[in-house]
This record gives sequence, structure tokens and C-alpha cells, in this order.
Amino acid sequence: MTKIAPDSNDEREATDLSRREAVKRFGVAALGVAGGLDGAGVVSPDLRTSLARPPPSRRKRPLVDRVAANPTEIPGPIRRSKPRNHRLRLTTREVRAEIEAGFTFDYMPYNEQVPGPLIRVRQGDRIHLTFENPSESRWPHNVDFHAVYGPGGGSVATTANPGQEKHLAFRTVYPGAFIYHCAVPRLDYHISSGMFGMILVEPPEGLPEVDREFYLGQHEVYTRPSSGEEPHLRFDHERMQREDPAYVLLNGEHRALTPENRGAIQVRTGETARIFFVNGGPNLTSSFHPIGNVWTRVWRDGALASSPERYVQTVSVPPGSCTVAEMEFPVPGQVKLVDHALTRVSRKGMLGLVDVQGEATEDIFEPEPGAP
Amino acid sequence: MTKIAPDSNDEREATDLSRREAVKRFGVAALGVAGGLDGAGVVSPDLRTSLARPPPSRRKRPLVDRVAANPTEIPGPIRRSKPRNHRLRLTTREVRAEIEAGFTFDYMPYNEQVPGPLIRVRQGDRIHLTFENPSESRWPHNVDFHAVYGPGGGSVATTANPGQEKHLAFRTVYPGAFIYHCAVPRLDYHISSGMFGMILVEPPEGLPEVDREFYLGQHEVYTRPSSGEEPHLRFDHERMQREDPAYVLLNGEHRALTPENRGAIQVRTGETARIFFVNGGPNLTSSFHPIGNVWTRVWRDGALASSPERYVQTVSVPPGSCTVAEMEFPVPGQVKLVDHALTRVSRKGMLGLVDVQGEATEDIFEPEPGAP
Amino acid sequence: MTKIAPDSNDEREATDLSRREAVKRFGVAALGVAGGLDGAGVVSPDLRTSLARPPPSRRKRPLVDRVAANPTEIPGPIRRSKPRNHRLRLTTREVRAEIEAGFTFDYMPYNEQVPGPLIRVRQGDRIHLTFENPSESRWPHNVDFHAVYGPGGGSVATTANPGQEKHLAFRTVYPGAFIYHCAVPRLDYHISSGMFGMILVEPPEGLPEVDREFYLGQHEVYTRPSSGEEPHLRFDHERMQREDPAYVLLNGEHRALTPENRGAIQVRTGETARIFFVNGGPNLTSSFHPIGNVWTRVWRDGALASSPERYVQTVSVPPGSCTVAEMEFPVPGQVKLVDHALTRVSRKGMLGLVDVQGEATEDIFEPEPGAP
Repeated sequence: MTKIAPDSNDEREATDLSRREAVKRFGVAALGVAGGLDGAGVVSPDLRTSLARPPPSRRKRPLVDRVAANPTEIPGPIRRSKPRNHRLRLTTREVRAEIEAGFTFDYMPYNEQVPGPLIRVRQGDRIHLTFENPSESRWPHNVDFHAVYGPGGGSVATTANPGQEKHLAFRTVYPGAFIYHCAVPRLDYHISSGMFGMILVEPPEGLPEVDREFYLGQHEVYTRPSSGEEPHLRFDHERMQREDPAYVLLNGEHRALTPENRGAIQVRTGETARIFFVNGGPNLTSSFHPIGNVWTRVWRDGALASSPERYVQTVSVPPGSCTVAEMEFPVPGQVKLVDHALTRVSRKGMLGLVDVQGEATEDIFEPEPGAP
Repeated sequence: MTKIAPDSNDEREATDLSRREAVKRFGVAALGVAGGLDGAGVVSPDLRTSLARPPPSRRKRPLVDRVAANPTEIPGPIRRSKPRNHRLRLTTREVRAEIEAGFTFDYMPYNEQVPGPLIRVRQGDRIHLTFENPSESRWPHNVDFHAVYGPGGGSVATTANPGQEKHLAFRTVYPGAFIYHCAVPRLDYHISSGMFGMILVEPPEGLPEVDREFYLGQHEVYTRPSSGEEPHLRFDHERMQREDPAYVLLNGEHRALTPENRGAIQVRTGETARIFFVNGGPNLTSSFHPIGNVWTRVWRDGALASSPERYVQTVSVPPGSCTVAEMEFPVPGQVKLVDHALTRVSRKGMLGLVDVQGEATEDIFEPEPGAP
Repeated sequence: MTKIAPDSNDEREATDLSRREAVKRFGVAALGVAGGLDGAGVVSPDLRTSLARPPPSRRKRPLVDRVAANPTEIPGPIRRSKPRNHRLRLTTREVRAEIEAGFTFDYMPYNEQVPGPLIRVRQGDRIHLTFENPSESRWPHNVDFHAVYGPGGGSVATTANPGQEKHLAFRTVYPGAFIYHCAVPRLDYHISSGMFGMILVEPPEGLPEVDREFYLGQHEVYTRPSSGEEPHLRFDHERMQREDPAYVLLNGEHRALTPENRGAIQVRTGETARIFFVNGGPNLTSSFHPIGNVWTRVWRDGALASSPERYVQTVSVPPGSCTVAEMEFPVPGQVKLVDHALTRVSRKGMLGLVDVQGEATEDIFEPEPGAP
């Protein structure tokens, strides 16, 4: 967090994109009419005009060392038998960070991490949220929780211009693992910039015991090179329009959870683990698979009130949804967590490693048995 | 329905596309062989030659005011304890209508609405269908019901040239919510032009009671501007080939179910509602989500004989499938129905509103609780 | 298998692609850094350097008549009450074959068929695999089984340079229908070239009895024309990057399972059938549907330990997953097996036919009942 990055001027780009797409869709004669197209409508139109753009002088993005969330930073399981109240604070900060060695990107994470902090509560709990959008921000932001009954899942009440702080109180009525994400008008751009996380609402009876829990988030990023010599990637609204990302990421950075970067996840043979997985999208469905392993139990879409499915190789996770999946580790070695749309793995960065330490169990897996 | 639109000449476009795609796939040397590629094969080849193109003089498309189906136009729940016979009439009419304020598109809906009428029967009922393709049509059409055992789901028997009327009788053997759609050789083009709807086959025991039911259909449209000054969008077969639509729509028009257009859906707090949702595609999977709400019960793929899942945030609905999903409304305000592939919402028109009227329930949702 | 095809030089193409994508993503200034991007990482980096490219003299691809797997070639159901040991041999062979009448493509199938042989074992069985990569191959290959607990699902232990043979022994711990596929660094290219199949692990109690079983595999192929006059399609890495295939295929060839090509699947009215379906991808989710029929029971993702869903019209099958689906045939005529993303059917080859012979049952389906 040492340097100040110059304005990358995404607003102008977005307007240009709007115009280019309008030409593609409507032709030149229609341009006048098409002017109102730009990502409108998830908050009300009057809100849009009131959310004035901050003056240029504020537009600076600090450079930070890391945005990848630590997959082991998870509040502990809930053992209460009664609801309680919580205070929760989420802050957005627009920062510049390396998306891949040598190349920076402008993120908008919650609490400076992608995915944002895992919020863990119990069905029936009441949460008092403070949402802060610092004055250094260029954009208005907010939070839409899929765990919340109410307008915009809370996004209308929490929409904050730069320099504002908003409050919201809500009770969690139903259990499950749910995404939260920014939902201002150009929400796809904000989410693709890392603005999503998970709120886990445990059912009254809690979750089955496991030895380890991990927290992972997938999302895709639409980029194009800067015009100059700078090793900085700008947001590409046209690629987003085609749902054709440059990056598909686990925890916000290219191959973040590997030894070369933030390190692999560590487990031991014989342990059980649960993965809390959120797919921010904004657009792609994930085909989430553990290479060299299987989901012993999986709650599709994070729907903890439904029965889990057993021994599922690959679970489809739509954008704006979650999965809760458990694993066992009878065999040592690496497990690789991927989106099985494999071009996203081999060419776009979607890879996380689990390093399984322990004794070989040759009855189950024997790598060099010799010729038969 | 006052003006006559000129021929937009899609047939020539389709042939050109075929040739362009052939060049891309095979190179120039191969063009002779590749001539047979154009969208062949869901009906038999001999049928294709018999389905001659109508003479140019017939090619006029009347302009209509609305194609969006009214989401509340649904036959009532079935309370019978025995099967019965039905007579059903579906008519296709090729019409021109505004897909978005100021821009027209050539639709091919069933009974002039998108999605086509919701057909509601009981498992074991027998339906006698009359399918009419008026002489004003440019194309042959038919109906493939996913609720039907038999060749093409009925599409072979109902294929009608312009000016023809066909009949089909069938019994519904299994329960569920099923799509019906046109299935002539270039069926993706016909469906993208709005030619799909739902047939609901209730199980003998009926469906759980709810206060309201709504009927919604998603589909995507591939367009490009007209060559001239006209504010008319032509069908773009190349974009369809890349599965890259200009529009993703709910009930056939850009943001149809919003106050600015056909109006929002109306409910009151405390009510329960069921949504019958059909995804016409032709190509995209929908990640169907209610912003600020949750699916309390959802029958994935409309499979009413399976157990519903509970408290699902986002349900994946493949093209050519359905979902039946229930909601509760403990909190007043707007619920937004979206495909959570959010670029389709912010930039392509996929949005419907539910206006929930009633008393605030601050225990569940309190928008301005003040600082903690 | 009579002619020798010349080197199609995919390696150079891949390098060029890498460079082109790097320019797109990073801009010219970044090219030096971007050199390491090419499809890295599913095996360890040191393995990659040891897998040297074979000398040019070895690069010849024999022309074969057929790669489409016979859908009826399936080992019989398992009736044992105890585990047993198996010996299994998989051989890869890089071959050239017609992907469509008049156009060839370079495949890399297991045992010369797409999908590779259906391996059928029982939960608890132990398999001794010999994997052979013949000296004629251009590439290293291996096998990743989703049924295997262990590094890379066996792919690390089986990675074989051309001319090598590797061994692996494993026990099947959990039941289900699982994909196996090549998992060398550019695994998406290998899978798109046909390198995938199914391993079926029956639960101890076996599967419900049916009259017929069929084996089908979907995958998509990314091609572009050869530069010369040759009717040969080269692999297109850029189209793969955009997940924009030229072909989507059932059993490896354009409309393989139709009377014009390898023949339709044959059943009789009154019979029951089970389909073992594997989606190789590498990238697309399939929306698998039987036109004119329904999946009476479907085990989503091939998860045989979960309860099957009933009467599902269209089942979503992610890339790198499977489905097990049963059908009944009360009505004679054709059933068409498709991916209901219909542009893949009408324009990319994804179609298989089931020819149902038997007496008409007009109570269920009556094609010409006359006017009402």
C-alpha cells in the first residue's frame, strides 16, 4: 500500500462501450435513442442521478500487496442453541494490486480481500451492519445479501456515495450459504472487480463436524491492456458483454492458492474438510471439481435445508450462488481445485492446490505397481 | 396491428451465414461440400425439400403493440380427481413488434405472446391439438412438447406449411412443467424469435396451495442493425453461432415486467406465490434468482415428481427446461427477478419486478436502524 | 488406417496463440513476461521440461475409418457380491479421421474410440492399469480418473512420453459414473481431440434392471481450416480460449449416430433403456435432452449414491461430469438425443438417433386424429 496509481478512466471507457454496443445492436441512426442503455436499472433511476461521480482529484487507487483471501480465515462453527445479535462492519476500498506476477488490476474488494470476509451466523440471528464507502472511492457501492429478505437484499438501504456510511439491520430467516455482492447499476463491473463474499447462515442444529474448513471464491475478470507501456490491465466492458473473460480466478488472483503464490491449502490424510465456495461470476457457471478427489457430500447451491448429494465429481455452481462441499483424504499428494471448464484452468488462472500430507495407503492408490 | 412491415429477407442472410461459417470452418476449397450445412436435421431431409418457401408476395409482417405474455394469465389449479379430454388450439403468427422502446424485431410467437399460452392439464389427460400456420406466414412451423411421448414430441405430426392446419392427440403420461417450442430445421432461429411456451402437467394430487401464481419465460435474441436508417433489428445468425446474444429477455421484451413497460407483478406481504418459469434458450442456461428474496421451494427442471429443494438462492435452468419455484414475502418493497449472469441484466434487458405491498416488518428488515 | 498424414504443426500454432492472447491481455510491452502462459500447470513444472517434444520424424498420423465409439459396446451388469481384481489396458493413438463427410481432424482417442472404452467395475474392486503411449505419438499423455483417490486421479503416475508404458493400481472407494480424461498441461486441447471416456463404478447392490444400455459421450471441437487446399481442419486454440467451438459432437463425429453415418440406436416399444453419458467438454455444459421422450430416472452428475430424480426433461451435465439416465419407449418412432443448446444441434453436429420399433399406441400418441 505504498504507491498511488493514476486514474484509469473507466467511466469514459464504459460510455464508449455503450456507444459501440449501441452501434452494433441498433445501427448509427439509432444512437440518440440508445444513449440510455448503460447498465441501468438494478437501483431506481432517480438514485442513479443522485449518485454523482466524484471529482477527479479523488481518483487515486492505492497499491496493495495482496487481495487473495486467506482460505483458512473462517469464524468457528456455531455451538449456540439460541439466536443472538451481531455487529458487522464492511468497508469497500478501491485498490490496485497484481492480478498476476507483473500485471496490476484495479480491484474493489470488501475489506481488501477477494472474496470478502466470510460472515458466519445462525438462522434467526439479527445483524446490524455498518457499510462504509471511504471518501477515496471513485464509485458508489452497496451490499446485496442473498440471505436477506428485503429490497435489493439490502442494497437499496446500503447504497453509499464515496465518503458515506450506511446502516442496515436484518434477521436471517432461512439457512444456507449465500453470496453477498455489490449491486449498484453497473454491478457486473463491480463484481468482476472482486466485490463479493459469502454469508453463511447455519441451521439451528449446526453443520456436521469436520476437521478443517476452507473458504474459496471464484470469479472472472474482463481485461485488456493499457494503451501505454504500463503493465496494467484495464477493465474491458466489451469482453464482459460477450462473457469472454481474460481471467477466471480462485480467491481473486491468478493461481493464488499455489506454492508459487499465496501457498497451498494444508491437510493430513485421514482428515475431513468442508469447503465453502462462492461463485461471484458475474456471468460464468463454475463446474467445481477436486482433481484426485470427490465431493463426499455436497449441498447444491449452498441449500443447507436440502439433503446433501453423495459422491459428486463435479458440481455446477451458477454465478450468484454457492456450494458447500465436503472431502476426505485417504491418499497423500496434491488435490487440485478447478473449474472443469478446463481452458479456464490451463489458460486463465483458475487453480487452487490442497497439499495432503501423510502415509501412503497403497491398498487404495499405488502409483508404481510394476507390470501385471 | 396497423402497419405492414417490409420483408426483412432473413432467408438470404441465413444462406450467407452458412457460407461465411463454412469458410471459417473449412476454408475456401471446401465450399462446394459445405453447402449442405445450414441448420439441417431435426426433421428429416425429405421434409425439408417439401417445405418450400412461400412466394415473396406473402412476406409481410403486421406490426403489433405487444408480444409480452401477461404473467397473471394462467388457468386455475386443477381440482379434478379424474382425467379428462381437452381441445387446444395454437396458432403461430409472424409479427413485428418493439423489442425495446424505438426498435422493432420480427417475432414468431404462439398465439401472439411470448412465452406462448400456459397450457395446464393433469397427468393422464388427453389433449386434442389443432395447430394452425396462417397463410400469411413466411415459414413452416410446428410444436414439440417435452410432455409428449412420440416422434419429435409432436413436431413431426404438426409441421405445417403456411396456410396449413394440423392435428395431434396425445395423453400426458408423466407430471411436470415442460417447455413446448417450434422444432423445424432452423429451430434455434424460430425459438429465438419467441416461439416457445409451457405445458404444465399437474400430478394427480395437485400442487400445494399458494396465494398467487405467475408465468414467466426467458429467452435470448440475436440481432444486428438493419442496413438502412430503419430502427429495426434483424436476426443475426452469426451471433447465434457464437451464443452471443444482443438481448436476454423475460417475457419477450426488454425489461417488459417493469413499471416503465408492461408493469410490475403485484403481491402483498404475507402471501405465497408460485412461479412457472420456462427457459426457451435457444442456447443459454439461466441462473434464475429473486433479488431480495429466496426460492422457498424449487422443483429443479420442473420435475414435479421429485422432491423440491428448500431455500435455494439461484436455480440453474438449462435451455429447453423449466423450473417451478415458490416464494414468500415477509418484507414489503421490490423483488427483482433476474438471470444472475448479471451482464444479461445490466446490459441486455433481463429484468422483471415484483412489487410487494404491505406493512414493514422491522424485526426482519430494518433499513435505517441508525449507528450501533 | 491406410495413409500417413503430414505434420499439422499444432505446437507452433499453440505458441503463436499464446503470444496473440498475451498481446490481447497484456499489450506489447508485456510480451517478455507473458511467455510462460501457455497452458501451464496441471502437472508440475519440472515434469513439463522433462516431457521433451518428439523429433519431427515421428510426427505422422495414420488415417483411420472411424473413431465414434459403438454405443452398444458395454460390459454387462455386475452380479458379483464381492470385490475382485481387474487388469485394464488403455492405449492412446494419435490418428486422423473424418470428423464430418469430406473433412479430417487429428484425434487423440483412448483405444481409437471417442469416448474411450466404458470401464465397468464394482465399488471396492482393485484395478491394475497399464497405460501405453506408443512411440508414434507426438505428445505425452496420461489418464485422470474421477473415480480415483490420489494425485491427479492417477494422471501424475501415468504420464507417459511417446514410447513409454506406465502402471497404476487403485481401488474404487465410492460408486458412480465418472469421466476419465487426459490431464497433461494442455489438457483442454487433448480432451477436445477426443481423449476422454467413462469409468462406471457400480454400487454393491448393482443397478436397477433394464432391457438395454447405451454409452454416449459429448465433447466440443475447436477447428479452423488448413491454410492450403487440403480438406483438413486444424485445431484452433483461439476459439477454445473463447469457448466458441466449431463442432459439438456425440461420440466424436458429426451426427455420428444417425442412419447416414454410423447408424441409429435400436430399441423396441415396451423396453427400458439406460444411457451412460459422459461430457468431456473441455468447456461446455450440456443440456442433455431426448426429443420425444423424457428421462424417467436420472442420477445427476452420475452420483449413483444419491436418489435419482424422476421425469426430468433436460439434465444439465457440466464438462468433466456424467449422467446416468433411464428411458421408456411407449411410442414407436424416432427419439433424438441432443444438447438443448440448440444451435449446437442445428449447426454443430450434436445429434444421435434412437429408432423405436413397435406397434403404435394411439391412446398415448395419435398423429392424425382429424379435426375435433
